[in-house]
Parts: sequence; C-alpha cells; structure tokens
Amino acid sequence: MGRLVVLAYSGGLDTSAIVPWLRERYGARVVCFAADVGQGAGELDGLVEKAERSGAAGCVIEDLREEFVRDFVFPTLRAGAVYARTYLLGTAMARPVMAAHQVALAERVGAQALAHGCTGKGNDQVRFELAYAALAPDLQVIAPWREWQFKGREDLIAYVKAKRIPVQATVEKPYSTDRNVWHCSHEGGILEDPAQEAPEHIFVMTSNPLEAPDRPVTVEIGFEEGTPVSVDHVPLRPVELLETLNETAGRHGVGRADVVEDRLVGMKSRGVYETPGGTLLHAAHRELEQLVLDRRTLRLKDELALRYADLVYDGRWWTPEREALDAAVASTQKRVTGAVRLKLYKGGLAVAGRESPFALYQSSYATFGKDNVYNQKDAEGFIRLYGLSIKIGAGLATERAGAVGAAAD
Amino acid sequence: MGRLVVLAYSGGLDTSAIVPWLRERYGARVVCFAADVGQGAGELDGLVEKAERSGAAGCVIEDLREEFVRDFVFPTLRAGAVYARTYLLGTAMARPVMAAHQVALAERVGAQALAHGCTGKGNDQVRFELAYAALAPDLQVIAPWREWQFKGREDLIAYVKAKRIPVQATVEKPYSTDRNVWHCSHEGGILEDPAQEAPEHIFVMTSNPLEAPDRPVTVEIGFEEGTPVSVDHVPLRPVELLETLNETAGRHGVGRADVVEDRLVGMKSRGVYETPGGTLLHAAHRELEQLVLDRRTLRLKDELALRYADLVYDGRWWTPEREALDAAVASTQKRVTGAVRLKLYKGGLAVAGRESPFALYQSSYATFGKDNVYNQKDAEGFIRLYGLSIKIGAGLATERAGAVGAAAD
Amino acid sequence: MGRLVVLAYSGGLDTSAIVPWLRERYGARVVCFAADVGQGAGELDGLVEKAERSGAAGCVIEDLREEFVRDFVFPTLRAGAVYARTYLLGTAMARPVMAAHQVALAERVGAQALAHGCTGKGNDQVRFELAYAALAPDLQVIAPWREWQFKGREDLIAYVKAKRIPVQATVEKPYSTDRNVWHCSHEGGILEDPAQEAPEHIFVMTSNPLEAPDRPVTVEIGFEEGTPVSVDHVPLRPVELLETLNETAGRHGVGRADVVEDRLVGMKSRGVYETPGGTLLHAAHRELEQLVLDRRTLRLKDELALRYADLVYDGRWWTPEREALDAAVASTQKRVTGAVRLKLYKGGLAVAGRESPFALYQSSYATFGKDNVYNQKDAEGFIRLYGLSIKIGAGLATERAGAVGAAAD
Amino acid sequence: MGRLVVLAYSGGLDTSAIVPWLRERYGARVVCFAADVGQGAGELDGLVEKAERSGAAGCVIEDLREEFVRDFVFPTLRAGAVYARTYLLGTAMARPVMAAHQVALAERVGAQALAHGCTGKGNDQVRFELAYAALAPDLQVIAPWREWQFKGREDLIAYVKAKRIPVQATVEKPYSTDRNVWHCSHEGGILEDPAQEAPEHIFVMTSNPLEAPDRPVTVEIGFEEGTPVSVDHVPLRPVELLETLNETAGRHGVGRADVVEDRLVGMKSRGVYETPGGTLLHAAHRELEQLVLDRRTLRLKDELALRYADLVYDGRWWTPEREALDAAVASTQKRVTGAVRLKLYKGGLAVAGRESPFALYQSSYATFGKDNVYNQKDAEGFIRLYGLSIKIGAGLATERAGAVGAAAD
Repeated sequence: MGRLVVLAYSGGLDTSAIVPWLRERYGARVVCFAADVGQGAGELDGLVEKAERSGAAGCVIEDLREEFVRDFVFPTLRAGAVYARTYLLGTAMARPVMAAHQVALAERVGAQALAHGCTGKGNDQVRFELAYAALAPDLQVIAPWREWQFKGREDLIAYVKAKRIPVQATVEKPYSTDRNVWHCSHEGGILEDPAQEAPEHIFVMTSNPLEAPDRPVTVEIGFEEGTPVSVDHVPLRPVELLETLNETAGRHGVGRADVVEDRLVGMKSRGVYETPGGTLLHAAHRELEQLVLDRRTLRLKDELALRYADLVYDGRWWTPEREALDAAVASTQKRVTGAVRLKLYKGGLAVAGRESPFALYQSSYATFGKDNVYNQKDAEGFIRLYGLSIKIGAGLATERAGAVGAAAD
Repeated sequence: MGRLVVLAYSGGLDTSAIVPWLRERYGARVVCFAADVGQGAGELDGLVEKAERSGAAGCVIEDLREEFVRDFVFPTLRAGAVYARTYLLGTAMARPVMAAHQVALAERVGAQALAHGCTGKGNDQVRFELAYAALAPDLQVIAPWREWQFKGREDLIAYVKAKRIPVQATVEKPYSTDRNVWHCSHEGGILEDPAQEAPEHIFVMTSNPLEAPDRPVTVEIGFEEGTPVSVDHVPLRPVELLETLNETAGRHGVGRADVVEDRLVGMKSRGVYETPGGTLLHAAHRELEQLVLDRRTLRLKDELALRYADLVYDGRWWTPEREALDAAVASTQKRVTGAVRLKLYKGGLAVAGRESPFALYQSSYATFGKDNVYNQKDAEGFIRLYGLSIKIGAGLATERAGAVGAAAD
Repeated sequence: MGRLVVLAYSGGLDTSAIVPWLRERYGARVVCFAADVGQGAGELDGLVEKAERSGAAGCVIEDLREEFVRDFVFPTLRAGAVYARTYLLGTAMARPVMAAHQVALAERVGAQALAHGCTGKGNDQVRFELAYAALAPDLQVIAPWREWQFKGREDLIAYVKAKRIPVQATVEKPYSTDRNVWHCSHEGGILEDPAQEAPEHIFVMTSNPLEAPDRPVTVEIGFEEGTPVSVDHVPLRPVELLETLNETAGRHGVGRADVVEDRLVGMKSRGVYETPGGTLLHAAHRELEQLVLDRRTLRLKDELALRYADLVYDGRWWTPEREALDAAVASTQKRVTGAVRLKLYKGGLAVAGRESPFALYQSSYATFGKDNVYNQKDAEGFIRLYGLSIKIGAGLATERAGAVGAAAD
Repeated sequence: MGRLVVLAYSGGLDTSAIVPWLRERYGARVVCFAADVGQGAGELDGLVEKAERSGAAGCVIEDLREEFVRDFVFPTLRAGAVYARTYLLGTAMARPVMAAHQVALAERVGAQALAHGCTGKGNDQVRFELAYAALAPDLQVIAPWREWQFKGREDLIAYVKAKRIPVQATVEKPYSTDRNVWHCSHEGGILEDPAQEAPEHIFVMTSNPLEAPDRPVTVEIGFEEGTPVSVDHVPLRPVELLETLNETAGRHGVGRADVVEDRLVGMKSRGVYETPGGTLLHAAHRELEQLVLDRRTLRLKDELALRYADLVYDGRWWTPEREALDAAVASTQKRVTGAVRLKLYKGGLAVAGRESPFALYQSSYATFGKDNVYNQKDAEGFIRLYGLSIKIGAGLATERAGAVGAAAD
C-alpha cells in the first residue's frame, strides 16, 4: 500500500481536483478533512459523498465552531488585534484551528503527508504550512497549486470532467469569497481595482445601509475578563453570541470594511470584509478597556495589538511568541468585566454607555470644582517636575544663545 | 513700575476674574492675549473692550487659524496620532500654538510672567506650562486656579461683581466646551456619567444622524506628501479645506466620538467630541497610506502614532522628541500623494475608492491566476525559510517528547 | 492614645532624627521597620536598641534577602531589564519589597501612617510612595524631608544632639551609598562631576581591575526556566548563588558601571554601581536566550525589557502593567534552561560557551556546504518574496523617473 | 554579442570559478567589480590580473572606504544599532555600499545582469539582492551557489583547475572570515560548536587580553552631532579615526564578541567578531547621549535602535523605512556634541569621563541638599498625581474586597 495524505478539503472545484491528482501524482490514498467553522448553510452538505466520488478513501468533517470562536477569535479580540488598521482577521484566525485538527487526524490515521488547496500567491498557504511546521514538523507538505501545471479554473474543470468527477455547473462568481461564523471576505476579480467601490450585490452578511431600518437599535454586550458573555443581559455561548450579534449588526448594515492590505508574500491586495458581530465586539471591548485599564496598561496593549495582528495575519499562531502575548493579554483582562451599549443605525455605530464594577473612572476626581479627594495644588509640583528636563534643556539653549550673541559682539 | 504679566485670555468668566486678581495679588499690569483658532462666530467680538473693562492694560488678538491647521493639525494628522483610540486631539493641538504666541508677545512687551486660566485638574495647565518651560524658561508662571481661594463659578461671579466688571448674565451651560476649527469638545457636568449617552442638544458641529440627509454624499480628498490639498478636485488652503469638510461631514452627522480617556494628571475623564472634517481626513489619510506605503513603513508609523498621540495629548509639543518624530513622519510622506473618496451617510463613513501614482498595489501581482511577474513556486522557498525556526523548535520538542516518552516506559 | 506611624528605618542619621520628629510633629508613636536585603555585615547590629533610644515604640527587623532575590531580582533578570543602558536596578528593585513588608507591619500593628526617610529629590520617595498607594491606599504618607525645615546634615546632628539621641561620631562619607545583596551604588558629593573618573577608594564589592588576579577564571552558571540555579554545577539557593558570584566577579574586578541616568523626578544624576554577580547573571541569561529563543521572541523580549526597566526604575512594581509583563516573560522562559560559561579577567567578561537541551542552534543547518536538511534553492523564492515590495516600489520610481525624464525632453 | 554580467568579485576561489561558469552557463561576458572596504593589506593586490586570467572582460576596483564609514557605518552608530544584543553589524553594513556601486557600474557598462558569490544559506545573498531589487529592479540576478551543481570547495578547485585558472594553493582556513575597516568576522568550521570557546589563533584585529599591555590607556573621542570627529583632540577623517581606534583598542584586546545570532533565512548561527574601534565608538556615543538627550528621546532611540539593527542585518538598507529612521535619528543628534574618555585595559572597557556643552546633567539639580533651583515640596504633588491611578485602582480593590468580606459574613 502506498502513502496516505490528509487533505484540507472544501468540496469546491480546487480540492475536488486535488483528490484525483494526489492519487495520480503521488500514488497516494487521500483522506479528506473538512472543518465546520460556520461557512454557512449548505456548504458542508453532501461533502462526504462528494469526496468519495472524487476518489477519496474517506472524509472526516468536524464541527470546530465553538473552539474556533472561543480559542482563536476571542483571544484575538482580547488582544485588540486589527490588521492593516481595519481588517478583523476573520480568515487568518480560522486557519490555525483547521490545520491543527487536520494534523490531529493525520496522526490518528497514520498519514505521511498533509495537503491543502491554497494558491501560491496568498496568505493561506503560509498559515497552513506554518501550522504544519509547528505541529507536525516531520510530515511532508503538498501544495498542489505550486506544483501542478494547471493554470486556472478552466484547466481544473477540464481535468475533473476527464476524471468523471461530478462538479456542479455553478456559474463562477467573479471574485472569491471566504466565510465563517466571524466574517465573510471578498477579493479578486471585479474587486481588484481599489479605486472602485465594491458593488452592493457582493454582500451576504450585511444589509445595504441605505436600506437598513429607519430606527436605530441599541445593543448591550456583557463581558467577563475580556470575554463577551451576554447580549442584552442574556447569557450566550460563544457561537450563539456571535450569531446573535451578526444578525443585529448585519440587519443595520454595520461591519463592512474595504481594505488595501499587505500580504505576507510581498504584494498588496484589496479585500472587502463583512464582520458585523465582530465589529460590535471590537468596539465594545475597546470601550470597556478604556474604562477599567490604566493608561500604561492600555498603551502596552495597543503596542502588543499591532504585534498580535501581524502574527495572526502571518500564520504564526502556533509559536512561543503568541503564547507570550496571550499570557500578557490574559493578565490585563482580569478587570475587563462590565457592559457596553452600542447604538447601530444605517451602517454606523456609536457608543451609548459603558459600566463596570472596576471602572477607574470616578466622577469625584474628574469634576472641575470643589472636591476633597484631589488637591489642585498638587498639579503645580507635578508640572514642575514633569517639565523639568524641558526647562533645563531650554535654559541651556538660552544660555548658549546668549554666549554666542556675546561672542558675536 | 510694577511687573508685567501676559495672560492667555478668552473673555469668559474665569479670565475676566483673573485680570483684576493679578493686579491685586501681584500688583501687576496685565496684557491679555487671545488667539483666534476658529472658536466660532462671535467668540472674539468685543474682546478688547471686555479686557480693558476688566482692568487689562491691553489686549492683543491674533488670528492663528492658518498656522494652527498647517503646523499643528496637519503634522498630527500625518503622524496618524489618535489618543485613547478615538480622540483626535483637537484641544491638545491648539495649546502649543497659543502658548507660543503668548510667549512671543511676552517677549515683545518685556513681561516677567505668563498666566493662564486653566484649572488644576485638567490637561491644559500642563500643555500651557510645558510650552512656557520650553519657550520661556525664565519667565514666571502664574496659574490662578491653583493659587486663589475661589472654589467655583459662584465665587467668581461674586468677585467680578464686586469689582464692577460687566459679565453677561448668561445661563451657565451644564457642561464645558472647547471649540476650534478642528473640533468641538464637551465634558463635565451632565456628561459625567459614562454609562449615559450624551444628549442630542449638546452637539454644535454635527447633525443628528437620524436627521441627516437621506442620500449619501461622496467626497474626494486630494493629498500631496501627506497633506490634504483639495476637496472634490478644488484646491483649498488649510482652513478653507477644513471648513469645507466640516460642513459636509457635519451635515451628514459624521465625526462624533464619545471617549473615556486618561488625563495626564492621573484620573480618567469622559469627553464627547465633534471632529467632522478631521474624521474624514484621518480616514482618508490612513487609506492613502495603505495604498502607497510598504508594510514595514506602515508598521513603523503605527508605532510612532501611539507615541505621537501621547506626546500631543500631554503637551510635550516643543520638545526634541517631537522634532525627531516629525522628521521620521515627513520622510514617510514623500509618496503619500493621491486621492481618496469617502461616502458619508447618516453618521457613517465608508471608503469608496483610492488612487495614487505611487500605489504599491498592482493587480498584476495580486490576482490569483496566470501571471508572468510572480512565480508561485517562489512561495515554497519563502515559506520553508520563513517557518524554519518554527520547524526546528517543533522538531526539538518532538525529539524531547520522544525521549521523555522513552524514559517513561 | 495618639496615632501610630510605621517608619522605614535604617538607623542612620536621617531616620534617627525622624523618630523624635514624628513624635513632636504628629504626637505619634513610632514603630520602626528595618529590612535585611543584604546591606552587609554590621549594618543591622544594635538596630533595635538604637531605635528605642531614639524614642521608637518598637523596632521590627525582617530578613527579606531570599524573597528579594527570588521575587524581585530574578524576575527583573528574566525580563532582561537594564535602565539607562547599563544600570542593573539594584536600589530600585529593593524598594517594593521593603515597602510591602512595611505596609504589612502597619496593618498588623494598626498604624494610621507610613513614613520614610528619602529626600525630595530622588527616586526612592516615589518608589516607596507608589508601593504605599498600591498596597495601602488609605494610610497617610509622611515624608519628613519634604516637610521639615532641616536643610542638611548639620541641622540633623544638632537636632538629635539636642534630643540626646546617641549618634556615632562617624566621619561622613563624601558621597552616598546604598548596598544590598545585588549591588552597591555610590552617588553625590565627590562623584557629581560626570567628567571625572570615580576614585578607586569608593569601591567595596569589586577589586581594582589592575590588581585583580593575573589568571582568568571561568564560571559556569546553570539556569532552569530563566532562573539561575547553580554555579559550576553546584545547586545553590538564590542568595547563596548571588553571593558566590559576587565574590568571584568582585575578586576579578567585574561589574562596575559609571552611569549618567535620568531620575524620574526630571533631572539627570550620575551614579557609580557595583553589581559583580548581577553582571554575570545578565550576561549569562542573555546568552542562553540567544541560544534557545527564536528571533521574534527575542525581539519581543528586547522591547519589553525597555519597558520593564522603566517600570522598575520608576517604582511602578505593584501595578497591573508589571503583572502583564511578568506573565509574558514567564511564558518565554519555559525553554531558557541550560548553562553558560563566562571567563572573567581583570575587570573584563567574555562568553566562553553555552549549551541547552533546547538550543535552536543546529550546526546541520548553519554550516555552509552540503546538507540534506536545507535546500539552498529555497532561498531564491524567499528573497524574491521578501524583497517583492521593495522591487515594486523601485520599479514604480523607475517608471516615473522615466516619465519625468521623457517630459523633460 | 551575448549578454553582459557584472559580478561582485573578491578574487577568492568562489568568484574565480564563477567567472568561467557565467561564460559557460549564460554565454555572458563578465565584468568584475571589487570594492575596497578595508579588507586589509594584500587582499586586492593583483586582482585585475587575476580576474582577467579567470576570463573576465574587465575588472573595476573602487576604494569605498571613506563612503562606507561615513554613510553606512556612522549612521548605524548614531542609530545605536546592535543586532542580537552584541553584534555590531560589520558585514551587514558593507553589503549595501558594495551593491550600490556594483549596480552603478552595471548601468555604466550597460549590463543585463548582476551576480554575486554568496551561498544560499547566509544573509549576504539577501543583502545583495535586496539592494539590487531597490536600485536595479529590472536587472536579472544570478546567484551561482543556488544554481550550479558544485557542492563545496573540492568541486570548485577541480573546476577551476580544469579551466586552467591559476588559484593559489593556499591552505584552507578551517572557518570563514570577512574583514573590513570596521570589523573582522569568523564563523563556520571549527567555530560551529557554541559550547566551545573560540581558539585564540583566529583573532586578527585584537590582542589576547592576557597578553595586552599591563598599563591601561585612556582614549578620548570627540563627537559632533553624533559623528565621531577626533581622537585625543586630534581631528581625524572617518577612516583614519577608525583605524586609529582599531589600533589602540586592538592592542588592548578590546572589541571581541562571541555571538549566537538568528540569520534572516531562519537558522541560528554562531559568529565571533572583532570590532575594536567600533566597540569604543558605540560605548562612547551611548555615553554622550546619556549626558545630552532627555529621557524620552533616549527611550525613543532605544526602540528605534532595535528596528534599525534588524533592518541593517536583513539587508533592507535601501528602503523608505531606513530613510525614515535616519531622519528621526539625525534630528536627535543635534546636541550629541562633546567628548567621552574610555579606559582600556586587558580586554575591558570603562567610561572615564564625558562632557558636553549641551549636557542636561546639572549638579545644581542633582545634589541632595540645599538648593534654590529645585523645591523638594514639588515632589509631593508630583508623586500624588503620578500615583493617582494606582491609588484609585487599589482603593477600588479594597472597597470590593470589603464588600466581598461583608458578603461572606
């Protein structure tokens, strides 16, 4: 018997072609692995049968939604990580959880290799393969798109037809899409010109703001130690919570982002993202932190967030660096407990209130006017010492200017 | 002849009381200095007469609007500086320009001291006094609010009445406001509870999103080397440009922020800000940078932006640190030339297109599919080396786990 | 019954005067608290009697050496924190442990206030008082040096003589010193001119390099998870280990630093430090990390080290920020296990070898020449993608330069 | 006529083989380019003849020493850049200047390609090729070591012998070396075990500390705006200055470093470096900065230094990021003028004094005791505000602990 390969499988055209190609090219038996990370209704239907028709020796589907949100999405949220200033990392976060379970399956079935269907120009190949490097350094990696001679969709269709593999005669979308419970991304094709607005018809999770309800809605999100736990006072588990927020935010047209970003592999690309619930969660979490964390801890977090975003985007999830960052972030979240209200209206989002038992905000200190807790005279000493080095430096310049002036006489 | 003091003067109740108080307390002649930074119609009317009636020896008003926008607002914009994640620094940027001109006046008239009307609990006292320390280290600083015995508005009213200084019997606003051509801030009083939404009636520069026009508008902002220079293809000077954007964004309800922030003097406060044009400028500038700057330069800028925001907020404008940051930022802006279109609707803001002759985005590289400029096989070597240390680290763990397992047998 | 004050007490002239002064000024009973952090032989002898003769109601001495080294010195070492590029933070690390035990004593005895003998110009007042703020926010703080009228040593001597408190007629050292098991600092007086070399006679922990042994010695330090645990293969507890290294390094003249540093209170000062064992520990720890941590984790640590050093120097030990940093550092130290050999000679220090079961260094990868584990062709793809944005940017410039050139024709 | 290639040529075995190989493989004419960056006596002797005998169409040698030191070494020094905590970047800094002149030559002679002799496992290939990408994005790059089939030294010797190219029958050194006016590096071969001390015989620029002079020497280095300009009061041009310091420091055994570092291409390597003069320059520059720069500017520089070091090490010299960093650094150096004295002895280095007309250090502020310029009471207000958020946070915890305690009753 030949070698065994576990393939990250979606059932789309690409991976449908990869199954027979792996058999031909490597004489391998192929076990397909598909993860449910919330791609949406129907995406996983009939997948086992489809894999088998492609010639796979088997197909395993795992529901990773809860793990995805709890262990990948929420840590990234707590870290405040946003890539390219506005991208909420929906695709990037899904890869390490999928790859980890693919690896675990490979170990269970005794496979010698791992394969994926990512192209050679994108980030996903890196994300999958760095996860493989970290979790299965001894397994071979096969990336058909970097190896075979097929150039595009037409070649693949011809190939699978020749192999008598049934693929649905779906009309190709003129751009590519990736969806999970956190977000939906759109890129390529008709979206390639960053000077052009994205057409309204591509959006699937968010309403057109112009057609959103005429009355705003206010949503209250509750957090415990940085993790969202309730919506409008109803405790919810991670996936439920996210779906609830997706529905509300999506209905009001909130959560779209149009981003020109730098791929890890060196070129810029343009993506259009829908992250309705995630947009609310990031805004609410940030707001709660402003209330309960001191200034220095906030600044530390803002610096770490830049680093965390790069790390997630680049697929370096399974690394000591991420563990160190997570440890720091977890420490900061001990008091990030409370609630934030957001008002959604026609695609816009506004903070409508925040509260926490750990609020460092105390009106008794902040108020201008009489008070007992704060002695305004303290500010005098504070400013004098805070500005001392500025004054010394300035005095020095003055003295020297004087000296120079004198010398010039 | 007594000493001469130059007072940063607004004509409000506080500085109206400070004029006679400085005369009494210090036997000083008082020259008032007022800066026009775009406080709005009427704020400066009759100011000279008002100062004289308070007992000032003179009052000088300078129009600093152009300098303010060009030399303080735009550098901060180019730096991408945002404090507390959402505050666009409107008040903080105005202080160093005002203080610098106050100092220059003091030098012209041969004053021995500088005074301001800031309270002892806020940031502005620090901003004024650090500017004084840098620009006039030898002049005395007088901060009446930290020195006199008056406790609040009532005391001041009684005092000025006793001095027969005419103050308008205006009804006090139940919160305090600071306005200039960049923004309007509101804080204190009825805004002190961060759990409560700001009431609609406080807003002066922005419409209620619910009452904003039912049709979106698209605005195109042109930049040259990071500086905004045109709106909808019409070249505009800094103040004009800002006023144009303020009008459009304000009409569509764009540019409000509700912020819990950390004052430099140690406590948290809550501010509600309107920065209509500035909100567009920051979004557009950020977007253009995404198109033309490489990833590492963007990351450098994002780190420097955090530092720049702290620096501006804390009043450390006139320092070598700011000069160094400005030098770095200026270097990065050489290619930040191009145009960005923003769509405004009911308080919301979306990017509708960006273009630049220096765009690093090139669809020939980004496209998935056939191409000549990019060899997908390159990615294989890239990933292998990029992930090499991960793999070595993982292999090590595996080996050792094996060793441990063996030992445990 | 009057109020009760717990005083951080050293038995020197200053605190000997503070005891009666607190009784007079505040009508307080005074309990003295002294910590043994390794000040050296004799420093604590007769301290209880001395305190009582000054009029104290009691004096408690606690041996904090082990806790100091284990919980304050070693975490700072693991963080790699060095202030002002060369100061190893010996005094700064001692304050939070002393203050914490002083606070605990105050709670046990039911005191209403805490006092210390630090002057109003130094960092130590801040370090003590920030610890008090964090650990006993409700207790009053008394800082006699900022309050009384005494101006210097002569005033104090006159005062204690008038109070018939016996103080030894020691000749005053013409500079001040602070010593503990980690270091000895010298500053002030004859050391104030940073243009002058420190005189040889001030050094107490380190030999003159010119008189150090003529043969080098090699020391091997063993680490477990970032913590030093052995010297020359002999397991040692923290204080023992440090004393062993102090003796060896001190004998060879290793560990001196002459530093111009910025005090938190705004001015620069000059300190001369002896940190013999600590200098070895920092060098060895850094070296071991280079062997076992990946590049990105090292870079993260280097950035956090700057922040950690500021934090320790400024007395912000008991804060959420330090907890977050410690959590990150601890996570990175899991593999910092191994041994480093250092060669000491005439004041100099050189690395003579390092090894670890977790070394990421593998000669099979590093060697130039034939190998199976590394495919040199991979570098081609790596460089091409790594440099892609540089190339795109350059091509753009070329194109445009061409265009400009053409236009100029 | 065929294509024309410009080869970075050293005259060693590798590039001697590359000349005929390029002719065979590409049918190319080869122009050799050699740069004098201070490799040392004899290294460039007879190079033109040697190149021609290898079959080159020509050989151009340029003396880049002054430019190298002035425009590459000194900026890196001013930036304070040190890689892997101790490596002073000697090889890394030389590559961009060499590549830039190689590119300029290629343009002059109308070449279509650039070639170098770096192996596929090291950093230098990246440094050369990123410079090519930035400066000549349209030229082809040929890296024979990644392309040909030769596996090592023996293969090359056989090849050049077959081509009748005369190569000296030198005994191969059992490690590789790279030398320029700034440093000499040694790596590979017998140095590959990081647990073993480097043997004494490898060192060429520095004496054995055990055999260094028995009397210390003091050297004074003068700086203007961050650039070293004199030694012991004698003004010197860059190369002279460096050679003078190399001689003195080398004689006293100062400037060795043994480093485990991370190569850009993913593996760790071990290098032994001699940087005698450079070690003095870094120490002196750092020391002068401590005297004249304020704390925040120092901290900014320390952060930028980490980034600058990575950038230089990784070969990203010709990038907008470096330009931005240089602009920031240049701004900070305006006052870095003055002199630093260093004492050298038996391999060790100590600061023996520093002075500057711009010193922010002023003993009148730093002294503990009576003074007029500093009011110790200011510290009270300073500490209270500086620690305010700590106190609020702690009070909160206390309150809540109280509440919890009460609830538990």
